[in-house]
Amino acid sequence: MKKINLKKAFDRIEDYWSPHIAANVNGQDIRLAKLKGEFEWHRHDNVEEAFLVMKGGFTMRFRDRDAPLQEGDLIVVPAGVEHMPVAEEECWVVLIENAGTRNTGEHRSDRTKDDLPALSGD
Amino acid sequence: MKKINLKKAFDRIEDYWSPHIAANVNGQDIRLAKLKGEFEWHRHDNVEEAFLVMKGGFTMRFRDRDAPLQEGDLIVVPAGVEHMPVAEEECWVVLIENAGTRNTGEHRSDRTKDDLPALSGD
Repeated sequence: MKKINLKKAFDRIEDYWSPHIAANVNGQDIRLAKLKGEFEWHRHDNVEEAFLVMKGGFTMRFRDRDAPLQEGDLIVVPAGVEHMPVAEEECWVVLIENAGTRNTGEHRSDRTKDDLPALSGD
Repeated sequence: MKKINLKKAFDRIEDYWSPHIAANVNGQDIRLAKLKGEFEWHRHDNVEEAFLVMKGGFTMRFRDRDAPLQEGDLIVVPAGVEHMPVAEEECWVVLIENAGTRNTGEHRSDRTKDDLPALSGD
């Protein structure tokens, strides 16, 4: 049974916008990602995506509004809803979504990450 | 779309061992619970249960060992494995598990919580 300290795990992540798998629970990945700068518009047609801010803050842009998020904030993006994370400063987030969900959603781009790396436990 | 700050939400929880639902993502509850003292031995036969320590620490007892957990630690208890959380001091945890999972697992006791309360957003 793996125990993993998320703070230490975030420290080991070097790249922005590169989700790493910390664990899986009932078919859901618990992923860690460092954000900085703008991502890109995308949607996940059949998957909800939870974001929990562990450090810093970012803005989740939607087509009709912006949702500013700070440390401790949790938001669940509904399936099919276009969104784009934007982080002015480095931000650490935990994501919860179906295993296998593509980070860029229904399209592929040069920011698509296949075969997400799995973080080792302590 | 609900945004909820987990720190503020924990502050609103008054009872120990009383999971509150912060959100649901793809059929999984994201629950918040304050722990203090001993819970009881139980297992979930068909559900994995993730624990993320947000504040403080606790020990997850298993039949063959103890797993000490501190702030930032994440552990996933496999389905069918007996466990008992014990917290010497108040501890805040986020749990991820199937919606509808009984907090006392396969048995009922005076610590069973039915109809878990849902936390409102900010």
